[in-house]
Amino acid sequence: MISQINDTIIAPATAQGVGAIAVIRISGEEAITKTNAVFWGKNLENQASHTIHYGTIRDGEEILDEVLVSIFRAPKSFTKENLVEISTHGSPYIVRKIIQLFIRNGVRPAQAGEFTKRAFLNGQFDLAQAEAVADLISAESEAMHKTALNQLRGGFSNILKELREKLIHFASLIELELDFGEEDVEFADRQDLRNLIQEILKIITELISSFDLGNVIKNGVPTVIAGKPNAGKSTLLNALLNEEKAIVSEIAGTTRDFIEDELVIEGISFRFIDTAGLRETTNQIEKIGVERTRKKMQEAALVLYLFDLQETTFEEFENQIQELKNQNVSFLAIGNKTDRISAERLQKLASYSDTILISAKEKQGLEALKAELLRKIDAESFHSQNTIVTNIRHYESLVQTQESLESVLQGLHTGITGDFLAMDIRHALHYLGEITGTITTDDLLGNIFSKFCIGK
Amino acid sequence: MISQINDTIIAPATAQGVGAIAVIRISGEEAITKTNAVFWGKNLENQASHTIHYGTIRDGEEILDEVLVSIFRAPKSFTKENLVEISTHGSPYIVRKIIQLFIRNGVRPAQAGEFTKRAFLNGQFDLAQAEAVADLISAESEAMHKTALNQLRGGFSNILKELREKLIHFASLIELELDFGEEDVEFADRQDLRNLIQEILKIITELISSFDLGNVIKNGVPTVIAGKPNAGKSTLLNALLNEEKAIVSEIAGTTRDFIEDELVIEGISFRFIDTAGLRETTNQIEKIGVERTRKKMQEAALVLYLFDLQETTFEEFENQIQELKNQNVSFLAIGNKTDRISAERLQKLASYSDTILISAKEKQGLEALKAELLRKIDAESFHSQNTIVTNIRHYESLVQTQESLESVLQGLHTGITGDFLAMDIRHALHYLGEITGTITTDDLLGNIFSKFCIGK
Repeated sequence: MISQINDTIIAPATAQGVGAIAVIRISGEEAITKTNAVFWGKNLENQASHTIHYGTIRDGEEILDEVLVSIFRAPKSFTKENLVEISTHGSPYIVRKIIQLFIRNGVRPAQAGEFTKRAFLNGQFDLAQAEAVADLISAESEAMHKTALNQLRGGFSNILKELREKLIHFASLIELELDFGEEDVEFADRQDLRNLIQEILKIITELISSFDLGNVIKNGVPTVIAGKPNAGKSTLLNALLNEEKAIVSEIAGTTRDFIEDELVIEGISFRFIDTAGLRETTNQIEKIGVERTRKKMQEAALVLYLFDLQETTFEEFENQIQELKNQNVSFLAIGNKTDRISAERLQKLASYSDTILISAKEKQGLEALKAELLRKIDAESFHSQNTIVTNIRHYESLVQTQESLESVLQGLHTGITGDFLAMDIRHALHYLGEITGTITTDDLLGNIFSKFCIGK
Repeated sequence: MISQINDTIIAPATAQGVGAIAVIRISGEEAITKTNAVFWGKNLENQASHTIHYGTIRDGEEILDEVLVSIFRAPKSFTKENLVEISTHGSPYIVRKIIQLFIRNGVRPAQAGEFTKRAFLNGQFDLAQAEAVADLISAESEAMHKTALNQLRGGFSNILKELREKLIHFASLIELELDFGEEDVEFADRQDLRNLIQEILKIITELISSFDLGNVIKNGVPTVIAGKPNAGKSTLLNALLNEEKAIVSEIAGTTRDFIEDELVIEGISFRFIDTAGLRETTNQIEKIGVERTRKKMQEAALVLYLFDLQETTFEEFENQIQELKNQNVSFLAIGNKTDRISAERLQKLASYSDTILISAKEKQGLEALKAELLRKIDAESFHSQNTIVTNIRHYESLVQTQESLESVLQGLHTGITGDFLAMDIRHALHYLGEITGTITTDDLLGNIFSKFCIGK
């Protein structure tokens, strides 16, 4: 475990910019004392935990702002330390002046993620839960939000901890055997150990295989819109994006800047991979371009292949579908520009059941397209109640745990000596412990929390 | 007074974007009840004012977030209504989901400024104070911050209210005289009235004349950097800007986006007026350009006139200074590029006391320049404790009050009848009342609060 620093830290806790209010957070033994020293209105030292107090923050004679101060007393706070939240008028200038005042009074500016790190070090939650805090804040889709919140509220941490406890029990029995040296006693029942390891392996293997889905939930379903020039790819993307944007901005003031070409449909995030700019090229480069598009299509979880209904002959259509099948690409065939062809031809095409008919320009058929899109990627699995691994660090530790445990099984099978068995179990314990933070190093923690935002 | 709407409203209260936490505000009679309906952890209905409660917000079975709920009971809240602040993880997604949940449950999305408007309507503060809330939030310099906070804490409101009360007293006495019709009684002592009006006029005239300073405090000191091409104008501006930027970003996480070419020196905001793009022109247009630059220089509160010490002859220098003086422009003469001339020449120039010698490139002499700049604009007046009018609406009402009061004085002088006198006093009362919001209309309030941000 890491030596704990008990000084008092400060940082802005709310997003930067102008708002109605802004919140500054102060944590540490002296949080209440240091606030009281610049607060006018009442004596904060005497106030109970979880209470709010109105007054002014003053720098000498000068009033910096009228504020509300929330008091949280250790250990009943996020960091389990004394914690104060100062709610100010939402001006970056005021936030800066107040933080500068506290710094002059000996409070240290918090590093990125330092509040959460303290919460972890003080046992508020384990490391995987601490990491979920960051994931939760950056979640932009329902699926990601649900996964992060599930993890924050325990997720696989509890299962892993329980299994690890059992494994520790065996490890100590085996190590006890070693103490008896030559006597050939066997405290640890080998069959029980084998059963436990198989049980752990089963759970870990499930978690590992959930990572593909977890990765897609976190980063969006990689999706390519392909098709010949002028098939209407950009029009389709814009039609999909605009519609969703409108939904998001329904509530005034909550609109956020969209990451270009990221789209949330029914709570699932789709990341559209750009294949533009590959057309206007000379022949030789065109060839490379086609290669690159093909590669992107294969990397994608899903290809929306657009046909211009006006321009495509039946033969071209068949050939293209066949080629996509040959490439083993997961795709949807979409016929665009239904507004430009005759009713008769449309009816004929409609009988060709695998093709979704739309007019991107007129925004027709988009609902059917979305439904098909969700069906194709098995949308239900995104909303399952199963625990899903989204964090690459967890994934890597799980894979290493798996390898160690397989060594143990292998050892049990070949009947290796207790000391080698104990070593492999220790490895597995180490990797399992890394996930929940039972085993940590300064480097590991530094690496994790430096990615947090300031104030978290 | 305006009919008051008592429904319950909701809005995000903190700046948009990702932060450690975000705060959602709910105000109205049902604020606590509506929150309690989606809050799991304890019964909020029983909780005392100014207390904080941990729990989860749920949409049916689904947990939206783990939150802290702050309870403020009417009338001990910002709006003087029941008010709840929900502190969530700082994710725009979560904020959106929670607000959507409340809206589905019959809480109305707040309009811009609606919380402050309710605070005003419920007598938390007067209109001029409500307006100061918006000024305070957008304040970016110490001078503006101080002026807005002074206004929020009463400012001229209290004086104006007191004077208005006295004036109302006279108005009613005069109107009482009118009731007696032909009897020629005089309840209102004309000399006392004259004295009062002169007292009010003195204060109002001071307030009116403070507006020039108030305007500069609010919008920045309009400053032009002029000089021949290559004199180093941009280099100087960048040198000044960069240095200040560095100070601002001293505390990680508090950096804000700079408004280009706005610079705060010693708590005073300077707004640099662009004169670029006027050089690379043909002769005829050049002429117009020179005209425009000259115009801008005259509009500016201050011109920083840059000479290239390498290129400028003594005669050119003298001519230019004379021209600036002829134009009646407030200016500082600055010799740039001290790093490029000989020590001997530099010493000679230094004796020419009115010129500030700098090297913008090497950042030499900038402190002396800043000191001179502050002296030139009379920086001390920016930090005076006098009440300063910064709001154009207040300025206009003050001017109209002044005109009405001068009519009253004129009327007293010429001995007009009581009914005309009463009318002029009523006018003055109306305009005075508009400032503090004793007199309001829906249009006026709509106009003021629509400029606020959502959630304030």
